[in-house]
Amino acid sequence: MERELDLKNIQITDEFWSARQRLITEVVIPYQEDIMNDRIPDIEKSHALANFRIAAGLEEGTFYGMVFQDSDVAKWLEGVAYSLAIHPDAALEARADEIIDVMEKAQEEDGYLDTYFILKAPDEKFTDLMECHEMYCAGHLMEAAVAYYESTGKDKLVRICQRMADCIDSHIGPEEGKIHGYPGHEEIELGLLRMYEVTGNEKDLALAAYFIRERGKMPASSRKSSRQGAARPFWGGAHIDLPYYQAHDVVTKQDTAKGHAVRCMYLYSGVAEYALLTGDEELKKACDVLFDDVVRKQMYITGGIGQVADWEGFSHDYDLPNDTAYAETCASIGLVFLAHRLLKMRADRKYADILERALYNGVLSGMQLDGKRFFYVNPLEVNPDLSGKLPGYRHVLPQRPQWYACACCPPNVTRLVTSLGKYAWDEIPAGTAHGANESALDTVYSHLFVGGEAKLSHAVIRTETCYPWNGRVSYTIDNADGSEWRLAIRIPGYASEVTVTVNGTAVALADITENATAFGESDRITAALASGYLYLTAAFTTGDTIEVSFPMEPRVSYSNPKVRANAGCIALERGPLVYCFEGVDNGADKGQLLQELRVPADAAITPQPITEGALDGLYALDLAGERCYFENENTEDELLYSQARPLHEEVNLRAIPYFAWGNRGINQMRVWMPEK
Amino acid sequence: MERELDLKNIQITDEFWSARQRLITEVVIPYQEDIMNDRIPDIEKSHALANFRIAAGLEEGTFYGMVFQDSDVAKWLEGVAYSLAIHPDAALEARADEIIDVMEKAQEEDGYLDTYFILKAPDEKFTDLMECHEMYCAGHLMEAAVAYYESTGKDKLVRICQRMADCIDSHIGPEEGKIHGYPGHEEIELGLLRMYEVTGNEKDLALAAYFIRERGKMPASSRKSSRQGAARPFWGGAHIDLPYYQAHDVVTKQDTAKGHAVRCMYLYSGVAEYALLTGDEELKKACDVLFDDVVRKQMYITGGIGQVADWEGFSHDYDLPNDTAYAETCASIGLVFLAHRLLKMRADRKYADILERALYNGVLSGMQLDGKRFFYVNPLEVNPDLSGKLPGYRHVLPQRPQWYACACCPPNVTRLVTSLGKYAWDEIPAGTAHGANESALDTVYSHLFVGGEAKLSHAVIRTETCYPWNGRVSYTIDNADGSEWRLAIRIPGYASEVTVTVNGTAVALADITENATAFGESDRITAALASGYLYLTAAFTTGDTIEVSFPMEPRVSYSNPKVRANAGCIALERGPLVYCFEGVDNGADKGQLLQELRVPADAAITPQPITEGALDGLYALDLAGERCYFENENTEDELLYSQARPLHEEVNLRAIPYFAWGNRGINQMRVWMPEK
Repeated sequence: MERELDLKNIQITDEFWSARQRLITEVVIPYQEDIMNDRIPDIEKSHALANFRIAAGLEEGTFYGMVFQDSDVAKWLEGVAYSLAIHPDAALEARADEIIDVMEKAQEEDGYLDTYFILKAPDEKFTDLMECHEMYCAGHLMEAAVAYYESTGKDKLVRICQRMADCIDSHIGPEEGKIHGYPGHEEIELGLLRMYEVTGNEKDLALAAYFIRERGKMPASSRKSSRQGAARPFWGGAHIDLPYYQAHDVVTKQDTAKGHAVRCMYLYSGVAEYALLTGDEELKKACDVLFDDVVRKQMYITGGIGQVADWEGFSHDYDLPNDTAYAETCASIGLVFLAHRLLKMRADRKYADILERALYNGVLSGMQLDGKRFFYVNPLEVNPDLSGKLPGYRHVLPQRPQWYACACCPPNVTRLVTSLGKYAWDEIPAGTAHGANESALDTVYSHLFVGGEAKLSHAVIRTETCYPWNGRVSYTIDNADGSEWRLAIRIPGYASEVTVTVNGTAVALADITENATAFGESDRITAALASGYLYLTAAFTTGDTIEVSFPMEPRVSYSNPKVRANAGCIALERGPLVYCFEGVDNGADKGQLLQELRVPADAAITPQPITEGALDGLYALDLAGERCYFENENTEDELLYSQARPLHEEVNLRAIPYFAWGNRGINQMRVWMPEK
Repeated sequence: MERELDLKNIQITDEFWSARQRLITEVVIPYQEDIMNDRIPDIEKSHALANFRIAAGLEEGTFYGMVFQDSDVAKWLEGVAYSLAIHPDAALEARADEIIDVMEKAQEEDGYLDTYFILKAPDEKFTDLMECHEMYCAGHLMEAAVAYYESTGKDKLVRICQRMADCIDSHIGPEEGKIHGYPGHEEIELGLLRMYEVTGNEKDLALAAYFIRERGKMPASSRKSSRQGAARPFWGGAHIDLPYYQAHDVVTKQDTAKGHAVRCMYLYSGVAEYALLTGDEELKKACDVLFDDVVRKQMYITGGIGQVADWEGFSHDYDLPNDTAYAETCASIGLVFLAHRLLKMRADRKYADILERALYNGVLSGMQLDGKRFFYVNPLEVNPDLSGKLPGYRHVLPQRPQWYACACCPPNVTRLVTSLGKYAWDEIPAGTAHGANESALDTVYSHLFVGGEAKLSHAVIRTETCYPWNGRVSYTIDNADGSEWRLAIRIPGYASEVTVTVNGTAVALADITENATAFGESDRITAALASGYLYLTAAFTTGDTIEVSFPMEPRVSYSNPKVRANAGCIALERGPLVYCFEGVDNGADKGQLLQELRVPADAAITPQPITEGALDGLYALDLAGERCYFENENTEDELLYSQARPLHEEVNLRAIPYFAWGNRGINQMRVWMPEK
C-alpha cells in the first residue's frame, strides 16, 4: 500500500463530477492551450509558449507577459498530466511532450529555467526573491513534472526540474556565500517536496526545509538585497509589508492568517507536506493553529478566504464583508490543499468537512457551468449597480469574464478537478503514524462521496451516489484480496439520522460508538466511529456492500454574532452545498430587490430539481418568504426613513446552489438573507 | 421688513446653542487664527495669511499650501463677521481689518486676487477653471465680504471683491473673445449673488447667471482649454469625469445628485439663491427635483450626504453603506444651505425638517464637544479594528483629528453655527411671492426652536426652550408695533400630540386646520395650519404668549427596505436627534461587540440625563435589549457557522446623541442596530 494514490486507478463516473472532469478535459484544457498559443482572437496576448520557444532559440522575439508567465504553462501541464491519467489522449500527450522538449532546450547550462529572466533580465536572476516569482514558477513546474511522470511514466520534466532545483540550491541556502532568503510567493516548497517524493533526492527536501525554516527570519537577504540598484520595487511598492508575504514571523509562531491568502495557503500546505514527510510535530501544530484560525474566524461560509481585495488576502477576525469579498478561487483551492494534507496526517472530519465546503462552493463557483468563463473573485453578495463599478467594488464582477491576462485561477481549477480522485480517497498503510487513527491494519479512506471505481491495494471499490443531490452512497467490494483491512468513510458533520447498512443489515450511526459494533449475526464486519469517520473492519469479501444514507434536509445556518456583515441574517445549505438567491428567481423582473426579502428560519423548504436552462440538473430550494416595502412605494411620497414598520407581502423565494450563480446573465445575488 | 435678517438682532441664549456659539467664538475662531498664522506647533503649516502678506509685498517668501489655501482665510473671515455680529470684539475686528488691508495690498492692478496664481503661477490665471479653485476662493471671499459688511458696516472687502468680480467678468463670459466656461468647484455663484444683494450691481447677477446657465454645456472652454500645455491634469486626473463636477448636463436637466456632494450642494444653493432673487420657476423646480432626489434616495438618517470616499460624493439610489460613509461635514452644511434657500422660497416643513436633521446630526457631529477637534467624515458605523486602517475604511476615523492641512470643514461649521440666527428666523414681507404661503400680511417664520431674543420688524420675540431635550417652546411678544402680522411656527414632522397654547388657551394641533381657528373667547388671534407651519395671525400685543408643546418620545425608525445596509435594522431618534450606540456604554469592557446586540422595536426607552463626563448635559436613551452569542463562546469550540440559533441574554443598552459620538476615546459606534 502506497501513501500516494495512482490517479489512473481512480475512475470517477458519477453525474456531478464526471461531467465537470469532462468539461475540463474537453473545453478548458484545449481552450487554455489555444490561449497559450495565441490562437484566440480578441483576448489579451498570452505569449506563454512563445516565451519558451524564444528562450529555446526556436523562434525570434522577446519576452512578453507577466514576470510569472511561465507558471501558466506549468499549471496547464499539471492539469494535462491529471487529465491524461483519467482520460488518456495520445495527441494531447504528444503536444505536451513537445512543450517539455522546448523547455529542455530553453534550460540554460547551469540548469536555470525562467523565461522572464533568461530573455528579459538575465542580470537580475535571484536578485528579488520577494517580488519576482522565480521560485514560484519553478515550484509549479516541479508539481507539473511529478504529475506528468506519475501519469505517463516520462521523467524528462522531472530531470529538467531537478537541474533547476540544483541551480537554485547552488545560489540560495544557509551556507556562506549563498543568498539567505526565501521566496515572496510560496509554492516552491510544495514543488520541491513533490520532487523529493519521486526522486528521493535529499537535497530537494533540505532546500524545502530551508525555505520553510528561513521564512520570517529578519533581516532576510531576500528583502535586503531585493532588486539592488532598482529605482523602485518591482510591483510599485504597493504590497511591501511583511505580513503580505507571511514574512512577519517564523512559520511556527504565526497564529493568525495574514496577508495574501493564496500565498498563505501555499505556504502552510508546503509546511504540512513537510510535516507529513518528516513527522515534524512542531510544524504540524503550526499548520493546525493556522488552519483553525482561518476556519474559525476568517472563512466565508462558502469556504472562500481572503476578504480584502487590495492585497487579495486576510483581514481581521470576524470581518467577513459579503459584497466586497475577494475570496479568490485559488485561495479556496489553497484551503483544499492545506485541509487535504492535514487530513493525511490525521483523519479528522473537521479537515474533510472544510475541504468539501471549499470544493463544492468557493472553488466550483470559480467556473461557469459551461467551463468557458472563470471568476477570480467569489463574493457572497453582488449588486450590479455597484459591482465592478464603484470604488471598493471594482474587483467584484457580476459575471465571469472570459479569461484573464493573469491566468491564475482557471488552470488551478483544472488541476484540482482533474486530480479529484486523490482528494476523494486515501490509503494509509498499517502502522503509519496517523494520530489517534494509527492502526495495525491498512486503512482505505473515503473522504468525499464521489461515484466511480477505485482500484485500491486490497480491493476494487465501486461507489454509487447521486451526491450532492441526495445522501445515499453505496460501496461495493470487488476483487477482494482476502486480507483484513479497514474501510473508513467520512460522515459529514452536517448529516443527521445517518444509517449504515452492511450487507443488508442497517444500524443507526447513533448506535455505533468508538468500540466495535457488529453487523448482523456474524461479527465478520465491525464498525466503530472516531473523529467523524466510520471505520469498518473486516477481511472484506467480494460482494460486500456498505451503504451510508442520511436524509438531505435543507438547513438554515446562522453566522457567529461576532460577524458584523451577517447580523440578523441566515443562509441556506443542503448537503455540502451553500445556496444563494439570485434576482432572476426572486422577482427582479418586477423590480424586487434581494434586500427587501425576508427568509423565515422555520420556512418549509422544498428541494426542487431544475430541468431546463443553464441550471438543468441542479436542485433549487423553494420556500415561502416575505417582501418588505414602505407604503407609497415607487411614488413621490415614498419615504427613505419612517417610524412605520415596513409593510410586507408573501412571496415565493428560490435559492440555487452558490456555485451556479452568475450563469443566467447579470443580476443581484446574495447568500445571507435577513431573517424574517 | 427686509428679507435678509440682521444677525445682530438675533440673540441666542438657550443652553444648547449659546454654548456652541461660545465655543466657536472663544475656541475655534482664535485657534484657526493661530493656525493661519502658523503659531501652533506640531501641526502642518498653514501659511494662509503669509501667502497674502507675501503677495502684498509685506513679507518675503513663496506661496505655500493648497491651490485653494486662500479660502481658509475667507471662510474664517466670514465666521469672524458672524461672530462679531453676535459677540462684538473690537480687538478681533481690528485684526480682521488688518487682514483685509493686506488683501487690498495683495490685489493686483486689474482686480485679480488669488495668492496661488499671483505668487506661484502668474501665467496660469484662468487657464484651468475646472481644477484650480480660482472661482471657489473668490466666491468664499465674496461671502465673507458681504457678511463683514453686514456685521461691521465696513465695505472695504466688498469693494475688493467687486474689483475681483469685475476682473473675472472681463475674462469669462458669453461674449466673443472671453473664456466660455464655468468653475469646477461651485461657490462663486453664491458669492456673486450675495454681492449683488448688497451692491445691486447687475453685472454680479449676470455673471452668476452665466455660470449657472453655462454649466453642463459642452464642450466648455473650461474643459477644452483646461491647463493647455500642462503634462497632466492638476489633480493627477483622478476626478476627471463630468458628473464629479455636476457638469454632465445643464442644471435644469440634472434629476439625480451626482459627483462631489459639497460641490453639488453649493451649486444648487446658488441656483436656489438665484431663483429666489429672480423668481425663475424653472431653476426653482430644478432645485426641488435635486433636493428631493437627495433626501429621498441618497441621504443618511443623520442628514449626511455623499456616500463614496473616492470622490467625496454620491453613489446610487439607496446605496447607503454605514461603515464606509463619507458624509462630509461640509456636505451636510451644503444641504442646510440648500434647504434654507428652498424654505425661503416656500415655507414647507419638508425643507426645514431636513435642515434641522442635517444641522443637529450630520453637521454637529463634525465638531468635538470641546470645539478642539473636527471630523470631515461622519460615518454611521465605526469599527476601530478597520476604520482608518483597512482599504475602503482609511477615511473613516474613530476619533476626530486635531486639524487638517485642508481646513475645509471646521471654518464651515464656524460660519454656520455663528450665523444660526439666520436659519432660525425669517421675515417674509407681505405680498412676496412665496408659493401657497403668499400673504397680504408680513410673516415672521420660526423655523428652528432656538431660545433667545429676536428683534424683528413688528415686535421683539423672546423664545424660551430646552430644545432639543424637550418639546416645549414658548414665544413672548414684546415691543409690538400694533400692526397685524403672522407668526409662523414650524411643527416638526416627527412631533405628535402637539398642543398650541395662546395666552393660556390650549388647542390640540389636530383641531387646527387650514382655516382660521380662534383661541379663547376673543378671536383676536387665529391659527391655521399649512405645509407643516402653524400660522398665528393677529395684531399681536406686547405680552402675547404662544406655547407649542409636544411630548418628546423616543422613536424607533426604519429604513426603506430598498436600503441594503439597514435591512433588518432600526435606529433610535428623539426630537431632532438621531442616536447611536457606542461600545463604551454597551459592554465593550466585557468584550461585547455592537453587532452582537439586538434592539427590540417595542422596548421601553427611557431618556436619561447625563450629569457627568464629556457628555454632561446631554440625554441618553436607556433600554433593555439582548446580546446574541454562540455557545462555547471564546473557547476553541466556538463555531463560525452553525445550525443552532444564537443564544441570547438580556443586556442593558444605552444610546447617545449621534453628534456626541467619539468624545470618549476610540471605540465602536453604530446608528443602525439589528432589530430583535
